[in-house]
Amino acid sequence: MGHQIWSYETLDRLCMDAFTNPKFGFTPEQGRIITDVLLMSDLFGIESHGMQRMARYHKSIERGMIKPGAQPEVVFETPVSAVIDGHDGMGQLIGHKAMTLAIEKAKQCGMGIVTARNSNHYGIAGYYAKLACDQGLIGLSCTNSTAIMVPTNGRMAMIGSNPIAIAMPAEPYDFFFDASTTVVTRGKLEVYNKQGKPLPEGWALDRDGKPSCDADDVLKNITAKNGGGIMPLGGDTEHLGGHKGYGYGMICEIFSSILSLGAPSHLTTMNNQGLICHGFLAIDPNIFGDAQAIKDHLSDYLQQLRNSPKAEGAQRIYTHGEKEVEAVAERRKNGIPVLDNTMVEVLELCSALDMDFASYFGDYLPPKSDFKGNTF
Amino acid sequence: MGHQIWSYETLDRLCMDAFTNPKFGFTPEQGRIITDVLLMSDLFGIESHGMQRMARYHKSIERGMIKPGAQPEVVFETPVSAVIDGHDGMGQLIGHKAMTLAIEKAKQCGMGIVTARNSNHYGIAGYYAKLACDQGLIGLSCTNSTAIMVPTNGRMAMIGSNPIAIAMPAEPYDFFFDASTTVVTRGKLEVYNKQGKPLPEGWALDRDGKPSCDADDVLKNITAKNGGGIMPLGGDTEHLGGHKGYGYGMICEIFSSILSLGAPSHLTTMNNQGLICHGFLAIDPNIFGDAQAIKDHLSDYLQQLRNSPKAEGAQRIYTHGEKEVEAVAERRKNGIPVLDNTMVEVLELCSALDMDFASYFGDYLPPKSDFKGNTF
Repeated sequence: MGHQIWSYETLDRLCMDAFTNPKFGFTPEQGRIITDVLLMSDLFGIESHGMQRMARYHKSIERGMIKPGAQPEVVFETPVSAVIDGHDGMGQLIGHKAMTLAIEKAKQCGMGIVTARNSNHYGIAGYYAKLACDQGLIGLSCTNSTAIMVPTNGRMAMIGSNPIAIAMPAEPYDFFFDASTTVVTRGKLEVYNKQGKPLPEGWALDRDGKPSCDADDVLKNITAKNGGGIMPLGGDTEHLGGHKGYGYGMICEIFSSILSLGAPSHLTTMNNQGLICHGFLAIDPNIFGDAQAIKDHLSDYLQQLRNSPKAEGAQRIYTHGEKEVEAVAERRKNGIPVLDNTMVEVLELCSALDMDFASYFGDYLPPKSDFKGNTF
Repeated sequence: MGHQIWSYETLDRLCMDAFTNPKFGFTPEQGRIITDVLLMSDLFGIESHGMQRMARYHKSIERGMIKPGAQPEVVFETPVSAVIDGHDGMGQLIGHKAMTLAIEKAKQCGMGIVTARNSNHYGIAGYYAKLACDQGLIGLSCTNSTAIMVPTNGRMAMIGSNPIAIAMPAEPYDFFFDASTTVVTRGKLEVYNKQGKPLPEGWALDRDGKPSCDADDVLKNITAKNGGGIMPLGGDTEHLGGHKGYGYGMICEIFSSILSLGAPSHLTTMNNQGLICHGFLAIDPNIFGDAQAIKDHLSDYLQQLRNSPKAEGAQRIYTHGEKEVEAVAERRKNGIPVLDNTMVEVLELCSALDMDFASYFGDYLPPKSDFKGNTF
């Protein structure tokens, strides 16, 4: 499938106009947060969590699953902690409020932890970890999601993609790690499905719990809750440590749905509510002594990792966050590739929102396509 | 290789007598802690971290690497945090003191985090997580170790086995997860080496960074720092998520060596010092509202996981901690198997400590063996 490259500024203007359009209904400040979360993902090269989500969010608002006017409410609080009920609002706004509160608490007490329930998809977990890191703190964030991970020995998806993200200040790049606890995300399966390609072995399971390379079948089974899904990091048996990926998925579940008394992954997206839960932790390195010395210590270790001997045939060892820094520089300069099928959705969205597609994309029109969209 | 089964009480008496022997030099209270850490591992079925370590600890004391009389010192402290310098003491005693302090802080402030540097091998990470859990808190612990994990695209071990453990109260079993961030631990390679068996594919790398099934060669290369080692969880490429296992290893490194300003894994066990670092976090669930409701919520989710449909051919879905509960019951009743080669080491140790081997094991004598021991 083809793609078209657009400048960051073009996509930013499109997103801001869409989110502040009366049919989305967000204020400019809210639109700014949502747009920043989505475009950070596009700049990092994670298209699945970027502006391609706009069409999906619009449908969720139309269906009443996302309530744009909802006010996230702090329902329990201590000096170091809070629990937020998102009241089915936009995930990015709930996430931003929760991490901002965790950061305030960390600045006051050294550590701040906030959990959130009754939210929706909040974009990439790493955005929230980075919010803390940009203020000199260690940031962690995690979220559950619609169940896609099949536990070891199971055949039903019971756990979400359950990403855990952590960011910590370092030079010349911050340490930044953001990864699902499954082998791959649902988004990767959707890309294979859009391209009509068989999945690599070791990623997915069919409805009987057996390995499968059929992206379309796996995705449909996940949506219909027929059984099957994606393997935990480490695979579908204990031989290569699948029980460990399952365990990391559970750690995410504890710090999102369990500690917020919200819905675990297998109960999310029921009755047309998102019911997604998140967790946020901020830690001030000053509670361990000299924050600058700690930052230097991490920077030095990361440099030694990058400098260490390479495997035969490998050019370079990356530390976490390095690829993202390079991707942002490259995409800010050369533009962001957007899949043709996503442009089809953008065209439809502009029509639904009474926005002029040509005012963003000139005389470009996406090619006709038989693709009916991934189910969600 | 054969094994002999001994009662928990016999091994407990042996360990207590050895650790309080003048040549080890610990007080009865200290001996109790060290013995409890080791035998918890044996009861869980993790022999690699159990009483078989006694001979290794004895050699480390003789070499001056472990200083039995060292007093762990709090070198930095806030109401929610502390940094401990272990002054090369026994890892279990440093770990116990650190987690006890984290628990006190959590009871006062809601959360407590303690890091420790200049320590030694502390046994299983899960012991310390469980200390917090047994008092109704969420406990986390992690430790770095001699470098065994090769980063993605690398060929030198730069990161330890770097286990992360978490325990949280639940019924009928606590949630208890304790796993290295490598595919397998060094201990697993040592067992294959003791048995002269080739390693399964997907576990280890040779000195050029290529996959290897030769346990003896890989272990020797790790010890000599020649290159090679064990793959991160997810394998040696990004295809199945090896960069994620490498990332979890880094999270452990941050919460042990980086935040204690101690030695990262690749600099440990240098100049005859252990230089191992640990991290400990305790969280009181009451800071999220009703701790009992949270415990019930977790218990319910774990039950739903166990009850969920099984893969074809699978009998049972385990939640983390369940196997350990069953192993403890079985081994308390039927005894703990100890490998013949470990019994050879115990016989030598009794001789070195002027202890009467027969007073523990009657007229049993271990079979003669050509095994020279794993290098460490």
